[in-house]
Amino acid sequence: METVIALDELRLARLRLPETVGFVPTMGFLHEGHLSLVRAAQAECASVVVSIFVNPTQFGPNEDLAAYPRDLQRDLRMLAEAGADLVWTPTPEILYPFGYQTWVTVEQITQLLEGAVRPGHFRGVATVVAKLFSCVRPQRAYFGQKDAQQAAVIRRMAQDLNFDLQVVICPTRREADGLAMSSRNTYLSPPERQAATILYRALSAAQQAFAAGERDAGRLRQCMTEVIQSEPLARLQYASCADPDSLQEIEGQISPAGDHQDCALLSLAVYIGKTRLIDNILLGD
Amino acid sequence: METVIALDELRLARLRLPETVGFVPTMGFLHEGHLSLVRAAQAECASVVVSIFVNPTQFGPNEDLAAYPRDLQRDLRMLAEAGADLVWTPTPEILYPFGYQTWVTVEQITQLLEGAVRPGHFRGVATVVAKLFSCVRPQRAYFGQKDAQQAAVIRRMAQDLNFDLQVVICPTRREADGLAMSSRNTYLSPPERQAATILYRALSAAQQAFAAGERDAGRLRQCMTEVIQSEPLARLQYASCADPDSLQEIEGQISPAGDHQDCALLSLAVYIGKTRLIDNILLGD
Repeated sequence: METVIALDELRLARLRLPETVGFVPTMGFLHEGHLSLVRAAQAECASVVVSIFVNPTQFGPNEDLAAYPRDLQRDLRMLAEAGADLVWTPTPEILYPFGYQTWVTVEQITQLLEGAVRPGHFRGVATVVAKLFSCVRPQRAYFGQKDAQQAAVIRRMAQDLNFDLQVVICPTRREADGLAMSSRNTYLSPPERQAATILYRALSAAQQAFAAGERDAGRLRQCMTEVIQSEPLARLQYASCADPDSLQEIEGQISPAGDHQDCALLSLAVYIGKTRLIDNILLGD
Repeated sequence: METVIALDELRLARLRLPETVGFVPTMGFLHEGHLSLVRAAQAECASVVVSIFVNPTQFGPNEDLAAYPRDLQRDLRMLAEAGADLVWTPTPEILYPFGYQTWVTVEQITQLLEGAVRPGHFRGVATVVAKLFSCVRPQRAYFGQKDAQQAAVIRRMAQDLNFDLQVVICPTRREADGLAMSSRNTYLSPPERQAATILYRALSAAQQAFAAGERDAGRLRQCMTEVIQSEPLARLQYASCADPDSLQEIEGQISPAGDHQDCALLSLAVYIGKTRLIDNILLGD
């Protein structure tokens, strides 16, 4: 496994990689979710490139950029073991040099859910991912379903800006008790860690209601809201039952899926103490 | 010379081209200015790709999108003669399909000059050029100095979004009487066509004042303004003496150039009747 920092080094190393190239962009502090993306890339591509970059432009002024967990040595060991071929760890100055002033914005689907409560977040995400795509030039790029809206934004951006690659979304990895894996789980105290399972329990309750025949989107949102409110350490930011493509809230009945097999995206943003967690589940037809 | 329309056709044809690839994006209705870009590309690259696309997103609601001159058959004959290898003529639906919602914006340098009087113009330019770059994947891309701010915006965008290519700016081509070549010159009636030489005469007057030692930016702007005002058919929109990199207006004395050889950009936007024309000259050290 080769590790590079400078853009020139990356471009040279990239030229030596056998095609096709799979790419896993990360912010580091890796967990099993990231490694599952690396393994998926390895199974489908001749080479796997991973980037580690805590992207400052996707953090709001009151968010956790400075506190975001970092452990490069551990990350590199995990990636070597998982079979990455090339790891790129650019600095902020490499990706945002003096005079930088270009931004990629995706409009409608960034106005809702995470975009509504984290202004500028998806502009930072779309911009850095477009830049990473231009630098790495992968044939396939891997993202987790855990960040469902991010996946939708990146898919849209890659299509709209004509990147010649396939965006692959892999299933959310969960701890044994259902908590979605996230680098931010490290912020949780032991009681908060226990309370954090409430997200998955709320999603599961709504999923079971759906399986039992409930098709009213408002009642599914209400079901999730009630479960979250039952946990004293949790504070709900939003509970959504939305169209999986447009991310628009569904009003009234959930309709059968059209040209895809999922007919609604259930998603949650919840504060557990000071830690903000998100999770989601796709409801199948 | 091969001609393609669909994106798949373009990508296939692009794969067959010998590297390196030079790219000349145009809006068609070609003139000697465009052909000089094609010849420059041909001299420096193994293959030359030209796109012809009247990009709707860079026109304002009251601008001349519908009236913009088009003559594809004539363009193709001229390009074949000039030695283009591949011509791509996408439709608006190919580049902006249903659901399209991603935009590339360059911030500071688009706020001035053309950007100040044509809101949204450079967002359309930066977006379509980023898309064309992603589709064509050239090693070199050629633009004319005639659109000086556009050249600066594209250079900035290509660098910021990490496109692995060189932006090449070629000199403005002029008619025998000094009028900068432009597809929009076709809008001019015979008396307007005569009056239109006032732009180059104004730039030349300021250039001569500079050569004679004038270093006050305000007096150079005043010099251009007075020349333009001497022409009854002309209406000045702006006369600028700006830093060639930041495009900020210079106040007071023009300083010697730092790391480049040009120390000021003189530029003009002038209505001749209903036709809006722009032109510029770089002042050397």
